[in-house]
Amino acid sequence: MEAIRLALAQINPIAGDLKGNSDLIITYAERASAQGADLVVFPELALSGYHPRDLIASKGFLTSCLAHLKKIYESVPGIPMLVGLPLMESSVTNSAALCFGGAQAGSFGKSHMPGRGLQEEAKYFDPAGELQLMRTGGALIGVNIREDLWYIGGPAEQQCRAGASLIINMSAWPFVSGRTGFAERLVMSFAARCATPVAFVNMAGASDELVFEGGSLVMGADGRLIARARPFVEDLLIVDVPLRETPESINAEPAESADSAESTESIETHFIELPAFTQERQKAALAVRESPEEPLSPEQALYSALATAIVDFTEKGNYKGAMLVLGGGIAPALNAAITVDALGSASVSALVPPGKGEDTARRGAELLGIKCIEITLDMKSPRARGYALMEAADAEGMVALSSITKSDLATGGVTLYGESAGHFAPLKDLWGTDVLLLSKWRNSMGEVIPASVIEPYDKDSPEDEALRILIEEDMGFDEAMQAAGIGPAGLEELFKRIQAAEQLRRQAPPGPRVTPKALGAEWTLPLAGRFRP
Amino acid sequence: MEAIRLALAQINPIAGDLKGNSDLIITYAERASAQGADLVVFPELALSGYHPRDLIASKGFLTSCLAHLKKIYESVPGIPMLVGLPLMESSVTNSAALCFGGAQAGSFGKSHMPGRGLQEEAKYFDPAGELQLMRTGGALIGVNIREDLWYIGGPAEQQCRAGASLIINMSAWPFVSGRTGFAERLVMSFAARCATPVAFVNMAGASDELVFEGGSLVMGADGRLIARARPFVEDLLIVDVPLRETPESINAEPAESADSAESTESIETHFIELPAFTQERQKAALAVRESPEEPLSPEQALYSALATAIVDFTEKGNYKGAMLVLGGGIAPALNAAITVDALGSASVSALVPPGKGEDTARRGAELLGIKCIEITLDMKSPRARGYALMEAADAEGMVALSSITKSDLATGGVTLYGESAGHFAPLKDLWGTDVLLLSKWRNSMGEVIPASVIEPYDKDSPEDEALRILIEEDMGFDEAMQAAGIGPAGLEELFKRIQAAEQLRRQAPPGPRVTPKALGAEWTLPLAGRFRP
Repeated sequence: MEAIRLALAQINPIAGDLKGNSDLIITYAERASAQGADLVVFPELALSGYHPRDLIASKGFLTSCLAHLKKIYESVPGIPMLVGLPLMESSVTNSAALCFGGAQAGSFGKSHMPGRGLQEEAKYFDPAGELQLMRTGGALIGVNIREDLWYIGGPAEQQCRAGASLIINMSAWPFVSGRTGFAERLVMSFAARCATPVAFVNMAGASDELVFEGGSLVMGADGRLIARARPFVEDLLIVDVPLRETPESINAEPAESADSAESTESIETHFIELPAFTQERQKAALAVRESPEEPLSPEQALYSALATAIVDFTEKGNYKGAMLVLGGGIAPALNAAITVDALGSASVSALVPPGKGEDTARRGAELLGIKCIEITLDMKSPRARGYALMEAADAEGMVALSSITKSDLATGGVTLYGESAGHFAPLKDLWGTDVLLLSKWRNSMGEVIPASVIEPYDKDSPEDEALRILIEEDMGFDEAMQAAGIGPAGLEELFKRIQAAEQLRRQAPPGPRVTPKALGAEWTLPLAGRFRP
Repeated sequence: MEAIRLALAQINPIAGDLKGNSDLIITYAERASAQGADLVVFPELALSGYHPRDLIASKGFLTSCLAHLKKIYESVPGIPMLVGLPLMESSVTNSAALCFGGAQAGSFGKSHMPGRGLQEEAKYFDPAGELQLMRTGGALIGVNIREDLWYIGGPAEQQCRAGASLIINMSAWPFVSGRTGFAERLVMSFAARCATPVAFVNMAGASDELVFEGGSLVMGADGRLIARARPFVEDLLIVDVPLRETPESINAEPAESADSAESTESIETHFIELPAFTQERQKAALAVRESPEEPLSPEQALYSALATAIVDFTEKGNYKGAMLVLGGGIAPALNAAITVDALGSASVSALVPPGKGEDTARRGAELLGIKCIEITLDMKSPRARGYALMEAADAEGMVALSSITKSDLATGGVTLYGESAGHFAPLKDLWGTDVLLLSKWRNSMGEVIPASVIEPYDKDSPEDEALRILIEEDMGFDEAMQAAGIGPAGLEELFKRIQAAEQLRRQAPPGPRVTPKALGAEWTLPLAGRFRP
């Protein structure tokens, strides 16, 4: 067996929606089968969505997962499938079930669990203890899940040492701004280091705070890219992947060869036997893509990630559209532009408060082609706008979008339940400087934000940079003060404001995480705390 | 050396307040020294408070911790001290620093880190790898931190096997309703199993969502209670503790004896040498307590925990007092009663909305002796009350208290930013049935809640019980339906409402956690999720 026809099913499941997700999986499996694929692979936790959080602690939910898995493999018996799901056996693991011929043939569990913040998996899953490979028609395939590929000497590398002809990595890899291509470089370096081809099957779409960047890909044993799927959206990538030749000795005496590998000493290696892949099955012509999808520029990637987050929060949450408050500021203007690009102008409405900024807001709404709604409340507090937004959005079944930014959240420049009011806050993890950058980038393709809105913000912001250093960089205070160009008094003043804004951060709406330290979700202070540097 | 005079310094630090906490530690150390104590012991993370969250990820903060530790041991050189703090050495550990004679003599790190929810420590701390004991004047003392005592064969047990004459456990043990005395039973069973005396030094007070129940204690080698400190509040408990005799062989050849212990095979054991305890120091007469503090009844403990949470959130957060909306319902009435018991009637104000329930609210305010403030907004939505509360509280520097309960949060019976508006929600982790129970208990000591308020709620609530089973019990759905007395349609309807309320739970104010599954903080669903059982 020299090559295998792989189908990388880059789907966008809904967290917890076992019925919808299993239907989606069946559809993709059938499409893959129709194109003659030998094996169709879904992302990490594809059946449950990533991730179902405390549903995983419910036996009822786990039992439902198994029932839906059964429905899937009974519906599409003709093609081997790897389906990610929370698997309840002797323990609960983040696993890939291997199914074929109307039955489950085995499973591959994840060993390295992220224990932090939004991807908290260690709370829910036990690590898998065994090293598993599947053997079919003379080929050994190592299947593993996300982090298990990234560690030197980790499970994926052990599978290579045990003779794998191909590594399949199933992921729900969250987008981080400025790190586009990071997953690809990790896969490339792995493939080159282990001289083994790798198929990386990623999730698409967004789930609450996490955005999955798609871009599933196949890398050859020489570390060269063979194919890449579309970014952020669903895709079915079908590729004929040349296999690394498995040494005869390994195939003949698997146990011995596993023992001889350095790092597998203490780990039992098991082999799941599968009939040889469908030599008899007639191969449909493979719709070869001319070239891999091009990677996005950093601005395009960040903008797309935010748009993806808005689309999926709105659609998965069954909202009819989106509503936001539009004034004279740059953040609401950018928020409106992204939302219109995401949902279309017919699905977006702007609340325009009377007074300063009203004309600019109307001009912005006109550029975007969205409806304006006047606010007529006679309250003075910023909470009046929040109040009006929530009442109007609830009345029409729309998602209320807040335009707060990371800069607002860091220092409490806005009022709790005022500017922060909303069901979702798309710009929550963006510093003011990124808001400016994206606004200019979007306007470079045609004016959607009035130039007069951008102009006053178009300058350096030393405070933003100081905040970024204090919150995102891991420095001692002396080093941080030097980098930020502030003295001890400035440092103390900033920390005082950061501390005072913790209440705002705790109660702010959720929003897409695009940095490794999202305020509120992954970076928190004590509320009744009093640290002064 | 047959006995040691231990000072258990059950303090209530403020998270992040290194200056204030080190002053507090110095004060307690001086008091202990004045009473002739051989060793003063502080709780887990006493210097930083429990816990400083992402400050621990800041090198600047960790450096500050070391500087404040130095200030402490230089200020009180005359008495050996064990101080809990985040310790930055080759890694960052949750540690106890042993200080004496104006220097740090060594440290004991924690090995078992809770990785979940509000006590998330695995995110911040590395586990300690070594087994350490301190040796002084012929006595071996095993020092460990919270979880390290609870595991069979864990670090504390290994210290006993290595010959410890005394085990000291430093904790920040959070209160859980109905589990009062749980820590005590764990200590008792450990002492009896290992035939070693144990001193359990716990934190007092509250920090955001966590309430620490105090009740530090000393248990003899026979598993009998020698002394117990006060619940919830600060205390200094000074006790002469008889030591277990350390076998000669162990003391003479520590290395060998450690090797011979079963479970310590792979763990290196180190000994921190300290001069023999102050035989020459003149012992002050020990103010022996007549008898250990009596444990509280379950209702008294829960009520005290909530009052402690309110006091500390208000005082540590520098609020001038508390404000809440009082209507005709039982939850606001109980909330007001606890708040008055916590802060005194002069520090509490009630907003009374016009209309139904107004008279009852005024009667309740009168019983509690608190001021009523009329609301004159002409808005109809529940958000109007939330708006009025936040504006009024902010204007006066008061903490706004929401009266939402766990039942409200489970099914979304209230409006986001409406009834849920506030800086703190004291009843957030209480089912309606617990609200009723506490109201009746408090009224049994004198009417503070009008009987007419309690009366309509004084009945069984099958829905509450069904919600509790679904959320707090780990059952399959068949079992849960049977226990809750509902069918598949009822189950689906409840899940639909639970799912829809996730947005409310995510943005609800913080409140004291009193069950193992606090909604929002430790039990979450996907927001844009769609699970149906």
